[in-house]
Amino acid sequence: MSKILVFGHQNPDTDTIASAISFAYLQNQLGVEAEAVALGEMNEETAFALKEFGVAPLRIIKTAKNETDHVMLVDHNEAQQSVADIKEVEVLSVVDHHRIANFETANPLYYRAEPVGCTNTIIYKLFKEHNIEIPKKIAGLMLSAIISDTLLFKSPTSTEEDKKVAEILAEIAEIDMETYGLEMLKAGTNLSTKTEKELLDMDAKSFNMGEKVVRIGQVNTVDVDEVLLRQSALEEAMGEQNKENNYDLFVLIITDILSSNSVALVAGEPKEKVEQAFSVTLENNTALLPGVVSRKKQVVPPLTDAF
Amino acid sequence: MSKILVFGHQNPDTDTIASAISFAYLQNQLGVEAEAVALGEMNEETAFALKEFGVAPLRIIKTAKNETDHVMLVDHNEAQQSVADIKEVEVLSVVDHHRIANFETANPLYYRAEPVGCTNTIIYKLFKEHNIEIPKKIAGLMLSAIISDTLLFKSPTSTEEDKKVAEILAEIAEIDMETYGLEMLKAGTNLSTKTEKELLDMDAKSFNMGEKVVRIGQVNTVDVDEVLLRQSALEEAMGEQNKENNYDLFVLIITDILSSNSVALVAGEPKEKVEQAFSVTLENNTALLPGVVSRKKQVVPPLTDAF
Repeated sequence: MSKILVFGHQNPDTDTIASAISFAYLQNQLGVEAEAVALGEMNEETAFALKEFGVAPLRIIKTAKNETDHVMLVDHNEAQQSVADIKEVEVLSVVDHHRIANFETANPLYYRAEPVGCTNTIIYKLFKEHNIEIPKKIAGLMLSAIISDTLLFKSPTSTEEDKKVAEILAEIAEIDMETYGLEMLKAGTNLSTKTEKELLDMDAKSFNMGEKVVRIGQVNTVDVDEVLLRQSALEEAMGEQNKENNYDLFVLIITDILSSNSVALVAGEPKEKVEQAFSVTLENNTALLPGVVSRKKQVVPPLTDAF
Repeated sequence: MSKILVFGHQNPDTDTIASAISFAYLQNQLGVEAEAVALGEMNEETAFALKEFGVAPLRIIKTAKNETDHVMLVDHNEAQQSVADIKEVEVLSVVDHHRIANFETANPLYYRAEPVGCTNTIIYKLFKEHNIEIPKKIAGLMLSAIISDTLLFKSPTSTEEDKKVAEILAEIAEIDMETYGLEMLKAGTNLSTKTEKELLDMDAKSFNMGEKVVRIGQVNTVDVDEVLLRQSALEEAMGEQNKENNYDLFVLIITDILSSNSVALVAGEPKEKVEQAFSVTLENNTALLPGVVSRKKQVVPPLTDAF
C-alpha cells in the first residue's frame, strides 16, 4: 500500500491541522505509513500554535490520487469540504466531530465520531486506547485545537470531556492554558491586514441544504465594528464568490470572542432562510445573533432546518 | 427525553437482533433509557440463539416517530435499510461494520464503525471501554452474532479481532463455540418449509447503485441444488418484488455454508452488471461465484464498482 495521506478540511483551522498531525503521528506509532498534509494555507492562529510548539507547517496538496489510493480524514467528512478528488481515492478512516452528510464509501471503514467540541478530544482517547504516549509538542498542538474549537470552553459545543482532556494535555505540554489560550485566539483575530477575500476564506465551508449550496464563513474578532466598516466591500466579494463557485447563499458569521455574540452578514438568495432560521429580520443584510459562536451547533442546524 | 429506541436493519439477522439487545443493555447500564426493538420477524437461526440463551424475542415496530424522537442504529446506517420513518427522528448514535451510504444527520452524533466481521465485536469493545460486565446470556447472543456473521470464521469479513472476542464471549457464555456454532448455523438453513417470498426476504437489503436500486438477498444452505430446484418459482417471485418495490435488479446469493461457495440467481436489469462485477457469464440467469460468502465484502463492492 502506498503512503496514506491524512488531512482535515479545506480552509484549515487549528483543529484540522492539529488533528492531521496528531492522528498521523498515532498511525505512525501503530506502524502505519501515514503523512499529515493540509488542503490550504494555515491561518495566523494555527501558525502561532505551530511556532509555539516548534512544529513545521504541513505540506499543502491540491489532489490526492496522484500520490496515493488511500486517505484518512480528520475533522470533516462532507465531500465538498474535502480534497478535490476525494471520490477517486478510498477513505480508510474518519475521525470527526461534525454531522455526517454527503459522505459515502463502497467498503466498510473505521469511523469514529463523537459529539464533542474538538476532534483532538477524540484523538486523545484513541491514544489512550492504544496506550501510546503523547509527545509534549503534539500535546501542545492538541490543546491548541481544543482551545480554538471551544473558544476557551465558551462555545456551546464545548463538553466536560473537552475540558478534562485539555487539562491533561496542558500538563503534558507544560503550559498555562488560560494565558496561552487567550494569546493564541487573539493571534487569529488580526484582521486589518487581510483583504476581503482573505476574510471570507479564513474559515469557510460549503453545505448542501435542500437544493441549494450555502457557504458559511466565520471570522473571530475582538472588534465586530471594525469588520462591519468594510461591509460593502465584503458584500461585493461575497457576491463574486457566489457567482464564481455557484454558491446560492453566503453567510458570514462575525464572532466577538470576548462577548460571545455574532453578527451575520448575508449575500445571495434565499436570504429569508436566514431570517427563518434565527427568527430575526435582516437590516441592511445583517442581523445580530446573540450568544451564537458555533457554526456547527448554532448556525448549520437551524439553517438546515429552514431549508 | 423520551425513551430511545435501538434497532438494527430490516429483515433482521442474528447480528442485528443481538446488537440491538447488547447495545441497549450497555446503554441501560450507562443510565440511558433505551429499548431494543426489531424491524421485522426474526429468522430461525436467531430464534435458535434466543432460545438457547433464554432471551425473549424483541418487540417489532413499523415506525419510530410515533414513540420517540431519538433512535440509535446498530448494524446498519443506510436509510433504505432502516425504519420507514428514519428521516423523522434524530439518530443519536450508530454502531456498525458496513460501508456508509445514504446516511445524513443535521447534528453531530456518536458514530462507531470498524471494518470487522460483526457489529457485536465492536460492541464488546464498548463494554470494555465503559468497564461494564457482560451477563452470560448477552455474551451468548453476542457470540451467536459473531458466528453467524463470520460463518464460523470462514467468511473473508472475519478478522483476528472477531475470533479473539468470540473466544472470550464463549468463555463467559460457558459454551463450546464450534459445536454450538454449527448447530445454530444449521438451524438457519431449513429452507424447505419456506415460500419463495420468504426465501427472498430472509436476509435481503436494498442498495442504491448509480441510478438503480439493487436488491440483494442471501440464503445459507447445506444443499444449493435443493434451492435451485425452485429456480423458476424464485425468478417469478423476484420479478414480482422488483415490480412492487421498484427494484431494478434482484440478485439472490445462495451460499453453501459447508463449501463456502455461492450461486447467484438474477432477475431484472441490467443483468450485465452482474457479469461485469464477477467476470462471469450468466447461464440460465445463474452463475457460480467460487469462494463468495460475504455480501458485504464480496458482492456489494464489485457490484457498486460495476455500476
